[in-house]
Amino acid sequence: DSDLEELIVEIISANNRGVSAAKNVTSEPNWSFGQSFFFSSTIVTTIGYGHVHPLSEGGKIFCIIYAIIGIPMTFILLTALVERLLVPATWLLYWLNSKLGHLYQPFNIRVFHLAIIGTVSFVLFMVFPSLIFAKLEPGWDFLDSLYYCFISLTTIGLGDYIPGDAQDQPMRPLYKVCITGYLLLGLTFVMLILHLYNDIPQLNLGLFLLRGSETSPGDPERMRLSGTGGITPKYTQ
Amino acid sequence: DSDLEELIVEIISANNRGVSAAKNVTSEPNWSFGQSFFFSSTIVTTIGYGHVHPLSEGGKIFCIIYAIIGIPMTFILLTALVERLLVPATWLLYWLNSKLGHLYQPFNIRVFHLAIIGTVSFVLFMVFPSLIFAKLEPGWDFLDSLYYCFISLTTIGLGDYIPGDAQDQPMRPLYKVCITGYLLLGLTFVMLILHLYNDIPQLNLGLFLLRGSETSPGDPERMRLSGTGGITPKYTQ
Repeated sequence: DSDLEELIVEIISANNRGVSAAKNVTSEPNWSFGQSFFFSSTIVTTIGYGHVHPLSEGGKIFCIIYAIIGIPMTFILLTALVERLLVPATWLLYWLNSKLGHLYQPFNIRVFHLAIIGTVSFVLFMVFPSLIFAKLEPGWDFLDSLYYCFISLTTIGLGDYIPGDAQDQPMRPLYKVCITGYLLLGLTFVMLILHLYNDIPQLNLGLFLLRGSETSPGDPERMRLSGTGGITPKYTQ
Repeated sequence: DSDLEELIVEIISANNRGVSAAKNVTSEPNWSFGQSFFFSSTIVTTIGYGHVHPLSEGGKIFCIIYAIIGIPMTFILLTALVERLLVPATWLLYWLNSKLGHLYQPFNIRVFHLAIIGTVSFVLFMVFPSLIFAKLEPGWDFLDSLYYCFISLTTIGLGDYIPGDAQDQPMRPLYKVCITGYLLLGLTFVMLILHLYNDIPQLNLGLFLLRGSETSPGDPERMRLSGTGGITPKYTQ
């Protein structure tokens, strides 16, 4: 009985360290290249699934230092990508303005513009990957895959579903690298949508709820495009 | 042999669902009030430890809807708290300016101001809680506790260390609620520090690395206080 107890404790401890005792096979080491690359990317994006994590003192200290440097760097990288994406996004807005400007208010065109980019991003980074994951991952249905994409791209990262961790996953390193690329690109589009959303002051819920008297009135161009009036504080001063 | 295999699979599956098979005791249900409250708070703050997670279809769908509403609401709450904290923080900056203004450049005073608030926050929300966790949690040393605080307040949330999950934790619900309060307050101070850091344009690494020509030149008051010169683009236009 005490032997069984010991075995159970061992199995649980091994499982918590990412080693499955089921099926007597030699599993890949936890810190293989693909797995480590994926782990690093989940640290710097603050997703943090936690399926693998440092166990040693040195590992924990390195993880802290790596995050202190890596998180701001990743944020700068994503911001730079968003800046690039804003060029075609703004082009689309101008095009919509030129086509629909005589029919609708600038605010409505802005919302329509956001809806277009939001829908395209949703299909590209939620629906489409979910279909792929549901196909590739054993035991994941479409809802599981969609749930995984959502939990990851909001950087919650529960870690209950992690792609590429099947026992007999073929081309695991490549697969993990591809997922990392997907996550970075997906987060970029999440940031783009938040940026575009923030550019529409009427949709700013915080401003609305907090009656934010301290917030800046925004630049005149933004005010003009969003239709809050042509006379900005700048000209009234 | 196949019986043992079956037992191992059962133990692992139970463990992955948060039920430890070790020690034949009836553990508290996973979704007790304290645990659920804590889980909810880790969703809306995007920490997402993942020690408990929805298993049913309905749970997953609810979790997605809850996050869509909860994350922006939490962000607004934290922003509102930061706004309140900015009042004493700005008061401290003015006080420092009045005392040290004749000795140092405004930029140096700003950095000193940030360093003071950063150090106080670090002691209050990293060192102090770490000492408490190292005392309260069985098997956590100071480094483990510091690592837990860091991983949580960066919203990485690996979930390898979670306070209040010991088998015989006394007053678990109260403890979990206290940790939730700590996390929200800690995240507020992280946001405050980021806000103060962003207010010093010379420290803006992104601007420096990306040669951000598109970024706004900042309000004149900020420029004046940070010492980038009194003549702002506004007056040159």
